[in-house]
Amino acid sequence: MRITLIGAGRVANHLALVLEKKHRIVQVFSRDKQNAQNLADRVNAEAINQIEQLNRQTDLVIIAVSDQAISELIKNVSQYVPDSLIVHTSGSTSLSVLTESHLRAGVFYPLQTFSFEREVNWSDTPLFVEATNTQDLNVLTELANELSDCVYQYSSKQRQTLHLAAVFACNFSNYCYDMAKQIVDAESVDFNLLFPLIMETANKATQNDPQKMQTGPAMRGDQNILSKHRNLLINAHRADLENIYKIMSDGIFNTHHSK
Amino acid sequence: MRITLIGAGRVANHLALVLEKKHRIVQVFSRDKQNAQNLADRVNAEAINQIEQLNRQTDLVIIAVSDQAISELIKNVSQYVPDSLIVHTSGSTSLSVLTESHLRAGVFYPLQTFSFEREVNWSDTPLFVEATNTQDLNVLTELANELSDCVYQYSSKQRQTLHLAAVFACNFSNYCYDMAKQIVDAESVDFNLLFPLIMETANKATQNDPQKMQTGPAMRGDQNILSKHRNLLINAHRADLENIYKIMSDGIFNTHHSK
Repeated sequence: MRITLIGAGRVANHLALVLEKKHRIVQVFSRDKQNAQNLADRVNAEAINQIEQLNRQTDLVIIAVSDQAISELIKNVSQYVPDSLIVHTSGSTSLSVLTESHLRAGVFYPLQTFSFEREVNWSDTPLFVEATNTQDLNVLTELANELSDCVYQYSSKQRQTLHLAAVFACNFSNYCYDMAKQIVDAESVDFNLLFPLIMETANKATQNDPQKMQTGPAMRGDQNILSKHRNLLINAHRADLENIYKIMSDGIFNTHHSK
Repeated sequence: MRITLIGAGRVANHLALVLEKKHRIVQVFSRDKQNAQNLADRVNAEAINQIEQLNRQTDLVIIAVSDQAISELIKNVSQYVPDSLIVHTSGSTSLSVLTESHLRAGVFYPLQTFSFEREVNWSDTPLFVEATNTQDLNVLTELANELSDCVYQYSSKQRQTLHLAAVFACNFSNYCYDMAKQIVDAESVDFNLLFPLIMETANKATQNDPQKMQTGPAMRGDQNILSKHRNLLINAHRADLENIYKIMSDGIFNTHHSK
């Protein structure tokens, strides 16, 4: 397949690198020419920073940009590649955002957190595909199967539920790690000491029901420790973390005691 | 060593099982006789449910009960084993809570989350020891070294900082997994789909700075997705999760945009 990448961020980079193994990346578009060039150089593609420069000879256009930029881009992109299949890679953007402007539209959503610094284990990464017509759905499914052992044909609604849950399971849990690091850093205590705890917590949530695995002072309703911890945060001038400590502890307590 | 366990919960169980390999567990105390008996049977000890039944012939008494019960128990326990070293296993309870009533006091704190259902990897588990006198500190350090490769002599203040951070890194991250599961369960979407994401998020936080690894709509300041997600939660009658979504997203946004 001849594939065009719209976007040069983390998702675009990781997708381009893995797709280039079996397919031809024709062009990489980014408003920032240097970003486009950096990715294009990695996958032997042409870098462009004007939508008008899009090469019409492409089978698949992948829009991998921030969710809020998709609806603007699609109108413009569709004009220059009217016959190609165009997909986005977003969890929470409906397929209909593309079909308003373009006939052959689809979704190619990888449920994973991407970093420039880290390799992606594609074979374990769940991929969710959707398309307006069956033929394109088959094309996307086949492409997804080349990358991953976990490919699903999901509706926009199911995908949105997954993305919302992923914000809790990934973005919010990562922020919990970040807050923990801020707390130990402020007292010159080594963050590494928490690694076995972080890994065991993640492991047990994937091997057992996390609700049954809950531990800690909030679950026990230990008011002594809860108020001691909140005072520590207030005395450290971290009213922001104290507020989160309260809200999360209330949530845990209510989950385990109000049934 | 002759060791007595006060408590028959998760920490007491896991400690008794690992200590019994090299030491003699003399008695297990729990107010609930059946709980005491269950653990005592596993480690060939005597089960008791009255403090007055404590056997004075013991080298080490380990109080592994909820934090709020320690200060009440120590006065009573000290009377019956006045010459023994008594330690607690709590992260946020100061050594002084014991020394108010007992001379030879210490702390033996494992930084880990314990479940009845799961084995503990003791060699990886950081252990923090503290004691009123050097000789007892050496005894506890030696005992800890038998269990773990990561033994530290930490003050009550440092231990408290670690425990507070552990609440964020473990209890709160686990609650994030729990909330994610509640969200997918409500729409009959499979929680297993999130496992690669959960493991990658934990792995990258322990291999890189979690703040640098943050991803998601809140970090990007994507107001479209943020309000879409909050509306989904409100429409699902989960104002509780919507509130947490807002507070956590604000925290992430401020961490990354207000510097």
